Amino acid sequence: MFKGIDNPYRVPYNGSFKVNNSTTKPPADAVGKKASKKALKKAVKELYELQRVLYASDKYSLLLVFQAMDAAGKDSTIRTVMSGVNPAGCQVFSFKKPTPEELDHDFLWRTTCSLPERGRIGIFNRSYYEETLVVRVHPQYLKYQKLPYPVNQRTIWKERFESIREHEKHLARNGTIILKFWLNVSKEEQKNRFLDRLNVPEKNWKFSSGDVAERQHWNEYMAAYQAALNATSRAHAPWYAIPADNKPFMRLTVAQIIVDTLKSLDLKYPAVGVEEKAKFDEMRNILENEPAG
Amino acid sequence: MFKGIDNPYRVPYNGSFKVNNSTTKPPADAVGKKASKKALKKAVKELYELQRVLYASDKYSLLLVFQAMDAAGKDSTIRTVMSGVNPAGCQVFSFKKPTPEELDHDFLWRTTCSLPERGRIGIFNRSYYEETLVVRVHPQYLKYQKLPYPVNQRTIWKERFESIREHEKHLARNGTIILKFWLNVSKEEQKNRFLDRLNVPEKNWKFSSGDVAERQHWNEYMAAYQAALNATSRAHAPWYAIPADNKPFMRLTVAQIIVDTLKSLDLKYPAVGVEEKAKFDEMRNILENEPAG
Repeated sequence: MFKGIDNPYRVPYNGSFKVNNSTTKPPADAVGKKASKKALKKAVKELYELQRVLYASDKYSLLLVFQAMDAAGKDSTIRTVMSGVNPAGCQVFSFKKPTPEELDHDFLWRTTCSLPERGRIGIFNRSYYEETLVVRVHPQYLKYQKLPYPVNQRTIWKERFESIREHEKHLARNGTIILKFWLNVSKEEQKNRFLDRLNVPEKNWKFSSGDVAERQHWNEYMAAYQAALNATSRAHAPWYAIPADNKPFMRLTVAQIIVDTLKSLDLKYPAVGVEEKAKFDEMRNILENEPAG
Repeated sequence: MFKGIDNPYRVPYNGSFKVNNSTTKPPADAVGKKASKKALKKAVKELYELQRVLYASDKYSLLLVFQAMDAAGKDSTIRTVMSGVNPAGCQVFSFKKPTPEELDHDFLWRTTCSLPERGRIGIFNRSYYEETLVVRVHPQYLKYQKLPYPVNQRTIWKERFESIREHEKHLARNGTIILKFWLNVSKEEQKNRFLDRLNVPEKNWKFSSGDVAERQHWNEYMAAYQAALNATSRAHAPWYAIPADNKPFMRLTVAQIIVDTLKSLDLKYPAVGVEEKAKFDEMRNILENEPAG
């Protein structure tokens, strides 16, 4: 079964991840903005080729999960990293506040129906992890799910994590490569980006006063991320905690992890079998001997 | 959490079920055809009322899974038992040979997307259990799933059962009541019904030569059913092995299990809260004081 590739930002599988020890900034020796952009361009080209062979080899699907605090750069990362890939083999789904139909199902349902088909890349902009993040920070939201059993706040999140782990294990076992990215932005940088959205008229539309309200729960969110990443980073579905204060570095790092992962699968274009070859000759013969007109 | 109601045909949860000890015929003291039909009519009426309160109470969904050998009576049971229920609260899905799109997903995907919403009844005519039945009897079908890992015939079914158990546990935990019916028809009775389809012109359309081919695998199918029922009959998702040689008895038994299960949930129409009541007064006031015209 697939095992997550090595990377300094990979969240360990033993539950030892600490948000406080996780950096939001690029390392001192990281390449500059221009070099990062150039490297990203190269990675996007590689991704284009890798997606083609992913599709042709028709063996795995790739699921990319993005989670982050507001203004960390999920949308722009998805846009810049995936823009080169053939859109026929790649679908992005954004999961917002659940609809009434979605709330009438269990919390894994809505994303399950959007899972990528074999040979394709599926991107979840937010995901079933919201259940263990926004809902955990605001446990009163659980009531909209109308769970028929009394909710025990000590065990519910353990159960949620168990369901997620078992769900991901099942998907991985059946050929879905799962990569999960937490774009780790600092509280300070988020403030800057919010102020930017308030001060720059073209960015005003991105601002929502709700985002500021959520910001008041920063520490609770960090605790929820730490719990979720520890409970669900596994070899077959690794989390990567990506420093997000510097966008070019973040995008490049994400792109490289995807490229390195796809490369590690050692995918090949399928060889045509002998029988198939024989049919090719027959088909060729028919085509070449078609009556004129 | 929901626990399966008692019933003589309930498959035990301890793995001790034997197909050979499971009867295909009604008990000697069963009521006759006419009385069965009358009792079914009454059960269907009860089901109609129970479905209304299931919908109004908006707490559970009900998933009914039907599995059986060909000609056991799945379609007709679903038709006769469910015909009285409001179709707005009840959906039937038949799962046939998987489509290419479905094969590009894991084996639980296609049914997951058709799971009943809260307050509704979902009926699966065949289901994800096909994976452990037809695919187990014809393991060569596994190749269409293009599983990326080498298939170990000793462990794959254990894995399938594990995935199913975990899937059903997750659904049950989140409010789906799961009842699974195996319509247990005898080999002799199947032959009679096939001959009937061949001999009666109006029934010819139901006949498929493939059904006769599958019949050659009878013992393998029985072994697969026994394994599946033992591996997955649990308190929160019980199997019932229903004698299917006598259709009126079979239909009545299925209907009674559904009715008894819904009754056991002790569903109530939701009471309106004080605040809601106050709003009612306001609304009433507005309506009563609407300006004329």
